[in-house]
Amino acid sequence: MDLVAGVLAGDRLALARLITRVENDTPEGREALNRLFSHTGRAHLIGVTGSPGTGKSSLVNLIAKAYRNPVDDTPPCKVAVVAVDPSSPFTGGALLGDRVRMRDLAGDPGVFVRSMASRGALGGLSHTTAAVVQVLDAAGFDKILIETVGAGQSEVDIARLAHTTLVVEAPGLGDDIQAIKAGILEIADILVINKADRPGVENTERALRSNLELAHPERMRFGSCGRGGKDNQPKTDLLQSSADEIWVPPILRTIALQGSGVTELKAAIERHLAYLRSSGEWQQREHERLQTELNQLLQAVLVARWREGVSDAELREVVARLQERELSPLKAVEQLLDLDAVPESY
Amino acid sequence: MDLVAGVLAGDRLALARLITRVENDTPEGREALNRLFSHTGRAHLIGVTGSPGTGKSSLVNLIAKAYRNPVDDTPPCKVAVVAVDPSSPFTGGALLGDRVRMRDLAGDPGVFVRSMASRGALGGLSHTTAAVVQVLDAAGFDKILIETVGAGQSEVDIARLAHTTLVVEAPGLGDDIQAIKAGILEIADILVINKADRPGVENTERALRSNLELAHPERMRFGSCGRGGKDNQPKTDLLQSSADEIWVPPILRTIALQGSGVTELKAAIERHLAYLRSSGEWQQREHERLQTELNQLLQAVLVARWREGVSDAELREVVARLQERELSPLKAVEQLLDLDAVPESY
Repeated sequence: MDLVAGVLAGDRLALARLITRVENDTPEGREALNRLFSHTGRAHLIGVTGSPGTGKSSLVNLIAKAYRNPVDDTPPCKVAVVAVDPSSPFTGGALLGDRVRMRDLAGDPGVFVRSMASRGALGGLSHTTAAVVQVLDAAGFDKILIETVGAGQSEVDIARLAHTTLVVEAPGLGDDIQAIKAGILEIADILVINKADRPGVENTERALRSNLELAHPERMRFGSCGRGGKDNQPKTDLLQSSADEIWVPPILRTIALQGSGVTELKAAIERHLAYLRSSGEWQQREHERLQTELNQLLQAVLVARWREGVSDAELREVVARLQERELSPLKAVEQLLDLDAVPESY
Repeated sequence: MDLVAGVLAGDRLALARLITRVENDTPEGREALNRLFSHTGRAHLIGVTGSPGTGKSSLVNLIAKAYRNPVDDTPPCKVAVVAVDPSSPFTGGALLGDRVRMRDLAGDPGVFVRSMASRGALGGLSHTTAAVVQVLDAAGFDKILIETVGAGQSEVDIARLAHTTLVVEAPGLGDDIQAIKAGILEIADILVINKADRPGVENTERALRSNLELAHPERMRFGSCGRGGKDNQPKTDLLQSSADEIWVPPILRTIALQGSGVTELKAAIERHLAYLRSSGEWQQREHERLQTELNQLLQAVLVARWREGVSDAELREVVARLQERELSPLKAVEQLLDLDAVPESY
C-alpha cells in the first residue's frame, strides 16, 4: 500500500502507520514527509500546555468536541490531538476514569488522537512532534491540538510549533513552581483557568495577571488587560499598519468537567487565528518555523556528508588526543576539517 | 591584562572578567577556552538539582562550607558554585533572608560563586554553563557545585555535565509534579531529603525508593537498597572487572538550616567519586562529554564554513520557495548543497 496516497485519501490506518514510520525516522518516513510537504501549511496548530493537575487533558477533549459539534452555524472541523504529555490520559499515564472520559471522542471519524510514544528519536521530541504534525496537516485536519506538560525546554519548543498556545492553570496548585511558570507565560496566547469552581480562583487570576504584565510589558501598554483588550474591538481602519496590532492574551475561566466556558474559549481561539491572519504574524511564524527546520536539516546533512569522508581511525585518534588534553576541541575541529583556522562566524 | 595568565595565577578579578567573556561567547572568550583547555579535567563537578522549595541553595551553601572546613583530617578544598537556578539566592531570585545566609561564603578566598546571567547565548544555557565550568576547572577549583532548578531539559543537560549528581527533595511538596521527577531521578547519583524534620519524611523516602527502583531496575538487583548497597562495602578483589561494580544511589536526610546530615552527605559524595575512579566511569563520562562537545563544535563550524560560500540572495530564494511549498526542506537542502541526494545517514 502506498501510505502517502492513503493518507491523502483519508485512510486512517495508512495515517497511523505512516506516523509510526515518521516517529521512527525511517527512510520511508522521510520520503513520505518529502512528498507530503506541498500539502502542508493549512492546519491551525493549537498548543495546550500546563502542569499536571490542571485538567488540561479534559480541556483538550472539550475543545475537540466543540470543534466537532459547533453550537453556532460554523461548519464542524476535522480535529487531531497529539499528546506529548506523559501524565495525559491520551498517552496512557492516567487513571481509568480519565480514559473513560476520552471515549466520547473515539469512533468519530473526524477526530484522530495520537500519543507520542518515543522520546528517544534523533532530533529530540520536538523534532518528531513537528514531523507528526506535518503528516496530520497534510492529511487534512483543520485543527491540530498539541498537548504538552509544559515543564521542560522541549515542551516549550513544542508549544512554539503552535500558532495559538493555551496555557492552562488551576486554582490551588500552589506557587512553588512559579519560577517554571514564568517561562511558560511568555509563550501564552490565551490563558485558561480551569477548575474555576474551586476556591482561590480570584487569587489565581490576580497572580496570572501580574505575571502576564511582567512577561509582556510591551503588550500591556495597549488597552486594558485581558478580555477587554484591543484585540476584542472591531478593526476600524483596514489600511492601518500591522505593527500597530497587539494581541493581549485574554484570561478565560473554564470548568472542563461540566463543559462550562468552552464556547468562549473556542471564540478566543478563533479570534487569535483572525488576529494572526490580519496582522501578518501567521506568515511570520511560518517563515521562522521553516527557517529553523531548514537550519536543523542542513546541519545534520553537512555533518553526515563530512563524516562519509573521514575514517573511523582518524576520528578515534583525534578524540584520544582530546581526552589527553593535547588538543582543545577547537583545535580538534581544525584538524578534522583540515582548516588553518575555523571561521569566526561559527 | 592577559586574563588567561591571571586566571591561572589565581586572580579572582581576571576570573570574573574572563567568565563574562566566555558567557558572551566573544572571540577573546573562545581563544581563552582554547588556551585553558590543557589545564582542565581535574575538578570534581557536583550537580545539585531539585524543585524550588526543597532548600537546595542552603544545602549547596552547606556543602561548600563542609569542603572548606573539614571536620576530619582531609585538607580543605577550593570550591566554586555555579548557580543556574532562577529561584536561587545566588542568582538573586530569592528573599533577603536567603541572601544573608549566603554571606558566610563571601570573603573566603577559597570560594568563588557565580550565577549564570544570560539564557540567550548561542549554544544554549547548557553549552555556556559547560564553558564556564571549564574556566573554573582550569582556575584550580577542586569541587565545582552546579546548582540547577531541575525542571527542564536544559537543566537535565547541565546535570549531565556533572560527575556526581545530587537530586534534592523535601517532604510535603506534593506529588503533582511526579511526572517531572521521574526524568530527574534517572540522573541521580545521590538522593537527598532536605528539611527532614518536616512531617511526611517517611512517605517521601518511601516514594523516592520506589521511584528509584523504577528508574534503575538494573541497579537494584545488586545488594540492598540505598545506604546498605554494595557501594558501601570494601572492595575485596582488585582484579574484579569494573563492569561488576554497581552504584546504588543512596538516600540521605539533611536539615540544611541546622547543618545536620552534611558530614554524611559529603562522605557519600566522596564515596561516589571513589567509585567513579575505580570503576572506570570517570574516564567513560569524560569521553562522552568531550565527544559531545566535539560534535556540537563540528556542526557549528561546518555550517559556518558552508554559509561563507552561499550568497544571501540564493538562501532567500530557497527559503521563499520553501514557504511557497514548492520545495520540501529536504529538497531545499539538496539544492543548497548541490547534492543529487542527501546522504542516507543524516
